[in-house]
Amino acid sequence: MLILALDFGGTKHTAGLARAQPGKRPVLVATRRQASPAGSDGPTDLKTMFSLAHSLLSEQAETPAAVGVSFGGPVDFPARAVRLSHHVPGWQGVPLAQMVEAEFGAPAAVDNDANCGALGEWRYGAGQGCSSLLYMTVSTGIGGGWLIDGKVHRGADSMAGEIGHTPVDPDGPECVCGRRGCLEIMACGPAIARCARERLRAHPNEGTLLRRLAGGDLTAITGEMVSRAAAQGDSAAGVVLLAAAHDLGTGIGNALSLMNPQRVVLGGGVTKSGKRYWAELRRSARANTLPEISAEIVPARLSDAAPLWGAIAMAEEICPPHAH
Amino acid sequence: MLILALDFGGTKHTAGLARAQPGKRPVLVATRRQASPAGSDGPTDLKTMFSLAHSLLSEQAETPAAVGVSFGGPVDFPARAVRLSHHVPGWQGVPLAQMVEAEFGAPAAVDNDANCGALGEWRYGAGQGCSSLLYMTVSTGIGGGWLIDGKVHRGADSMAGEIGHTPVDPDGPECVCGRRGCLEIMACGPAIARCARERLRAHPNEGTLLRRLAGGDLTAITGEMVSRAAAQGDSAAGVVLLAAAHDLGTGIGNALSLMNPQRVVLGGGVTKSGKRYWAELRRSARANTLPEISAEIVPARLSDAAPLWGAIAMAEEICPPHAH
Repeated sequence: MLILALDFGGTKHTAGLARAQPGKRPVLVATRRQASPAGSDGPTDLKTMFSLAHSLLSEQAETPAAVGVSFGGPVDFPARAVRLSHHVPGWQGVPLAQMVEAEFGAPAAVDNDANCGALGEWRYGAGQGCSSLLYMTVSTGIGGGWLIDGKVHRGADSMAGEIGHTPVDPDGPECVCGRRGCLEIMACGPAIARCARERLRAHPNEGTLLRRLAGGDLTAITGEMVSRAAAQGDSAAGVVLLAAAHDLGTGIGNALSLMNPQRVVLGGGVTKSGKRYWAELRRSARANTLPEISAEIVPARLSDAAPLWGAIAMAEEICPPHAH
Repeated sequence: MLILALDFGGTKHTAGLARAQPGKRPVLVATRRQASPAGSDGPTDLKTMFSLAHSLLSEQAETPAAVGVSFGGPVDFPARAVRLSHHVPGWQGVPLAQMVEAEFGAPAAVDNDANCGALGEWRYGAGQGCSSLLYMTVSTGIGGGWLIDGKVHRGADSMAGEIGHTPVDPDGPECVCGRRGCLEIMACGPAIARCARERLRAHPNEGTLLRRLAGGDLTAITGEMVSRAAAQGDSAAGVVLLAAAHDLGTGIGNALSLMNPQRVVLGGGVTKSGKRYWAELRRSARANTLPEISAEIVPARLSDAAPLWGAIAMAEEICPPHAH
């Protein structure tokens, strides 16, 4: 049984084909990926993705039995439609599941990338066997998804998991959501870059290594450069990185107190920042919850493919019975 | 079918008898309540409760088919035991379900009062029909319980719902848990009394009404007096009360962002503080979450009896089949 999985990311799009068999983990047959050009919009991205998918399908004798779609932005799950994208214009109210069904002639399901990531890690990755799981992706933004009792918990408005917009510092900088000191604005990749820039501007003698990585141009600093510089011993980069880890742990601690999930799985580029980053975020999460609450915080196993695997899992669930 | 329900509170104990019939709401036959004397301990409270229950049962021809127990402190649900009480000594590790079973010869289930309150309101009160529900009790402390997809969500360590220990103000006073500015230390009844006392000490010309209610003794001020004074137009009391409502709303806003429950049900004495209190907490919750997230926040319908009704619902669930 062939499954088509589509992952609309903020900066790249991935289509995947998987072969599912009852009781077994699906096998990923092939994937195709394309960067989303700056200035793109919803219709263009959709066209790109459909052409990726058709090129994959053209190599197969079968048509897909179901399509799972992960979207990098808020999705109205019962309406099967995208609410909007915070990064790309032209996605408001797009009935994505319906359009995918018309294009590929198979039932489709759409969810946001954090919920798909949670489902992917729970079914096939670091969350297997968990009764409750919080999945978080920490990259250009911070998203979260819940798996509770074997099901994605989406909430009344399909908005559960917005941990990126829980506050960790009321005096922090203003977030895209209009409030101050949200976890996202304190601990995502661009936030780490911003803090590093500010620190290096204020301390002209610090950050030799980081300055070199950025080619001497502070505006070129990225979160990933800060991680790399910290790993190579740049102490200014280290301080900035650990402050972000501390804030991430604070936000996770709140989630632990509120929901006591069995496990927290962290994905996204920022979480590849090494042992000291992980030690600090774990210490901070531990310090920010009650002692009776266990705090098992582990890296994602499927890495950036977690949403794609979640899309595969969603598609498996909606496969018509007796599909080839 | 007769059900025995026991509610161990911080300051009073209640035993209730209910008659359950399949498909119908149980009828509360009788309740008996006794205040817990200061300086009491676990064994004494247990004896008090058992004697309340036996006096209720002595008026019945039947024995109970099951017993539900609500406990005012952390419970290890799978172990069926009390972890401890924060108010009363001698409860550490007490195997309460087993002791109740031995005493009454019927299967028993034990959960903490916030989870019982959540279950009670969901089954019989303001949460009926909700797919997801956060119940909070705001009185001498702040507790929370989750109902998700028709089940109490207890979490990996039976500790889910500790919203009282999520932070709302990092510069706030130290909480019993050792951290600063937790929701509980900012917005529970004693916190309101403390803030009023501090305000009246600092402003000798304010709070005429509140001073009168406290008989001129600032140390005698209670949260309930502050609510009453505010309702009667005492502006200092009003300011203190609305600050607590604001902080409560902040904490609720975080929970809304994280879980997007369909409804939040608020019980406990502090939530009986009138229209302006409710308007401010709703405004603050709304302001502290994303615009896409609905924020239906309503008063508990079962009032202080929510945990007892939750205990009844738990007992119904464990009734042996074909019980009388």
